[in-house]
Amino acid sequence: MTQLFYLADLFGVAVFAITGALMAGRKSMDLFGVLVIAVITALGGGTLRDLILDNHPVSWIRDDTYIAVATLTAVGTVLWVRLTRPIHETGLLIADAFGLAVFTVIGTEVAMQHGVPLSTAVIMGVMTGVAGGVMRDVICNEIPLIFKKEIYATACIAGALVFIALRLLETPHWLDTGIAMATVLGIRLAAIRWHFSLPRFHLLDRD
Amino acid sequence: MTQLFYLADLFGVAVFAITGALMAGRKSMDLFGVLVIAVITALGGGTLRDLILDNHPVSWIRDDTYIAVATLTAVGTVLWVRLTRPIHETGLLIADAFGLAVFTVIGTEVAMQHGVPLSTAVIMGVMTGVAGGVMRDVICNEIPLIFKKEIYATACIAGALVFIALRLLETPHWLDTGIAMATVLGIRLAAIRWHFSLPRFHLLDRD
Amino acid sequence: MTQLFYLADLFGVAVFAITGALMAGRKSMDLFGVLVIAVITALGGGTLRDLILDNHPVSWIRDDTYIAVATLTAVGTVLWVRLTRPIHETGLLIADAFGLAVFTVIGTEVAMQHGVPLSTAVIMGVMTGVAGGVMRDVICNEIPLIFKKEIYATACIAGALVFIALRLLETPHWLDTGIAMATVLGIRLAAIRWHFSLPRFHLLDRD
Repeated sequence: MTQLFYLADLFGVAVFAITGALMAGRKSMDLFGVLVIAVITALGGGTLRDLILDNHPVSWIRDDTYIAVATLTAVGTVLWVRLTRPIHETGLLIADAFGLAVFTVIGTEVAMQHGVPLSTAVIMGVMTGVAGGVMRDVICNEIPLIFKKEIYATACIAGALVFIALRLLETPHWLDTGIAMATVLGIRLAAIRWHFSLPRFHLLDRD
Repeated sequence: MTQLFYLADLFGVAVFAITGALMAGRKSMDLFGVLVIAVITALGGGTLRDLILDNHPVSWIRDDTYIAVATLTAVGTVLWVRLTRPIHETGLLIADAFGLAVFTVIGTEVAMQHGVPLSTAVIMGVMTGVAGGVMRDVICNEIPLIFKKEIYATACIAGALVFIALRLLETPHWLDTGIAMATVLGIRLAAIRWHFSLPRFHLLDRD
Repeated sequence: MTQLFYLADLFGVAVFAITGALMAGRKSMDLFGVLVIAVITALGGGTLRDLILDNHPVSWIRDDTYIAVATLTAVGTVLWVRLTRPIHETGLLIADAFGLAVFTVIGTEVAMQHGVPLSTAVIMGVMTGVAGGVMRDVICNEIPLIFKKEIYATACIAGALVFIALRLLETPHWLDTGIAMATVLGIRLAAIRWHFSLPRFHLLDRD
């Protein structure tokens, strides 16, 4: 089970690294820029969570598999695109939803292990899931997409709440994890399929 | 006294959350984006200070009142604006100056308790006061306003210096705090009233 | 030797502060903005490294010489430009390459002292060298230059690898440091002289 979770975590890292590399390509960065943006997208959320929770050593400091997976995936993405294979957009969105589900559950669990208030654990789960993408967009000089597009972070919030509820009910760990991940995945995939989105807050600029 | 200070701190959180929610509205973010920007604006400065000082647990990790206040204020701001009540700009600026005064004094005091050099304590006071707003502007893809508009951070510097001087003179704690906050408030309100600003540094781009 | 290294470190801080002050000037910031951008550029990389490695107290918290050097250099830069002395661009690039060399070696060494995997030590060296400049560019609303221009971070990677290799061979410390710094300097100066750059990754935006 732990082994399976570790593999899912690395899969999440790889998927997020792909989205980072593609964004860097849209900004015509050089190869180093592609690697940095890929690594930040993949590991930024977990790093911020660990710094705020004082959870040292940070995962990728201890185990360099994380960096290796992110780097190799970024290089692979560049080669794939250069060979003019198109990116399968839908496949990427589904993979991204899976990565989001894994990261959210991991983030919520790590926070609970630190005995923080439950509302804080929800925030840590969401942060782990989305902060890497926010950093990617900020560095690439874009307003973060997740604040505008279809239900995204809301799926994380729901997944974190489900996970916490099941933990409190003391259901088996594999069941908590599975149901919480399915919640994130299900909401996110439904939002992509039917273009659900939250209401926007428009404020005219009167400056 | 401590109780009063805690309430003042929460008031600062609320005011900064309003400015975050309004900026998110100017960028047409969705409701989740509004909440995130509000929380980052309200708690970003203190979080950065605590990380750099290794002051764990971070305030809002320990006590979820902070997140609750920021979130509810953001939701309230959206409802208020939606119901087409205009924002009272002057009232908001005065409230913001008050929040700035509270955060600066808290930041300076926390740093002094950690026994850092006094010049570092000044920087920590200023950082606590202004870093949340800088994060808000950077994520919303704006050059931070505080680097361009009327005397703002300068008011924090003055307040932090006054606070440190009074602590060294060992005046009573309520007096230190009160005079330092009045310093920040006074300078900031005067700057707003008469549009004081620092000289700008213009450099022609010769690239 | 340690004394010499400390002086080199302060020299790196000063050079990076100059590049920060100049960027702030291009954005017409006020004097406070100039100081903040200068300090972030000069100390941001080392601070991020120390937070991630849990290496407390952060250098400039302990010793306020760093902040003093960065601040005074920024003020000096503004005065120099105001008096219409042009900036000697080539001199600045050479000084910047020297600062980069010092920061990279320091970052790699601090990471190795924390016993992290060697690949992580390389990343910490690069991060110490380049993260301050990335923060400068992000806050000033520019896509970070180092992701686009001539070989820059690649020089850091080479220097960090050389340093680690020599440490493992147990050559004298002054020799490790000297050769690693010369590697960064040499590659960077050659890249400036002959405009070497990494291949770019262009991805058409099909959104």
